[in-house]
Amino acid sequence: MFKQRGLLIVLSGPSGVGKGTVRKELFASPDTNYEYSISMTTRQPREGEADGVDYFFRPREVFEALIEEGKLLEHAEYVGNYYGTPLDYVNETLDSGRDVFLEIEVVGAAQVREKMPDGLFIFLAPPSLSHLEQRLVGRGTEVLEVIASRVAKARDELEMMDLYDYVVENDEVTKACDRINAIVTAEHCRRERVEERYLAMLEGE
Amino acid sequence: MFKQRGLLIVLSGPSGVGKGTVRKELFASPDTNYEYSISMTTRQPREGEADGVDYFFRPREVFEALIEEGKLLEHAEYVGNYYGTPLDYVNETLDSGRDVFLEIEVVGAAQVREKMPDGLFIFLAPPSLSHLEQRLVGRGTEVLEVIASRVAKARDELEMMDLYDYVVENDEVTKACDRINAIVTAEHCRRERVEERYLAMLEGE
Repeated sequence: MFKQRGLLIVLSGPSGVGKGTVRKELFASPDTNYEYSISMTTRQPREGEADGVDYFFRPREVFEALIEEGKLLEHAEYVGNYYGTPLDYVNETLDSGRDVFLEIEVVGAAQVREKMPDGLFIFLAPPSLSHLEQRLVGRGTEVLEVIASRVAKARDELEMMDLYDYVVENDEVTKACDRINAIVTAEHCRRERVEERYLAMLEGE
Repeated sequence: MFKQRGLLIVLSGPSGVGKGTVRKELFASPDTNYEYSISMTTRQPREGEADGVDYFFRPREVFEALIEEGKLLEHAEYVGNYYGTPLDYVNETLDSGRDVFLEIEVVGAAQVREKMPDGLFIFLAPPSLSHLEQRLVGRGTEVLEVIASRVAKARDELEMMDLYDYVVENDEVTKACDRINAIVTAEHCRRERVEERYLAMLEGE
């Protein structure tokens, strides 16, 4: 029986944009039917964090051995600690036909794009971008320096978007989640995917 | 002020698949915020049909003059009557930034694809495709001739899909509508569109 490989969904964006909050809200919904890939880190658990729930907490030597063996889909070091995505879990889940959801930093997302270019890359954008639009097209009440600094920041954020397929504005967490779910639904309806599935079926795979 | 051009959404599919029913259900919802482009026809109104609601009913000579003037986005003749889409309404609505929805036959959809290749083309597929899958992967209780004729029909339908971006199965009207709305939401989040809008805004357009 033919099993279509699942979709790899990568949510990223500038730090502080609210990726974690959006991810928690997505997985709090019973309608969300993709699997969350838990990251691995060498940092200490914080109050209330549990191993295998928030992160896989592992010693530095274990993490470095996994890097050596090529067992991480992406990894990066922040403030002296490693963070990364275990590769086997991702591949096994995709092979079983289920979608996998990663919530990672932009540096990691760039690594994943190189290794899995057919993933679904979603950039969570700060609402400042849409606020900026309102101000720029507004009644000119904003002082020029403020506009200039906002424009400069917006340019940086636009450049970061370049490797993503979709941009979701985090103006409201529930709205951002609805858009992400719409994107996943739409991608499952893409002609190439549907056609591939039916052709394989007709060939009797 | 920059105004992004709206999306042209084209819903088509094999005759009898239920395009009209899905379109009516979509426009019965208060959440649907795209404009329906009413088709023009030379056929007589049926009981309960009103001019400017179901169709623009026009005499044959008016319709033919519009064809001559290139004022139809697409047109075709069925059973001795013309059916077509007035071009001006579509362009004016798109220019105003609103999305336009067309529900047309596959012949017309192919004409629109040529004239407006960046439209969003959605193929409404009969549930027989998914039923077929269930049977083929089922317990072999179906007689061989039935499977063979279904496979042949499925192949024809797969070939028709080729010029579409998305395939939505009409297994249930409300589910099909949800998928179509998800596709429209997702397309508005596509990076190219968002980026274009912000870049134009930063340039002060």
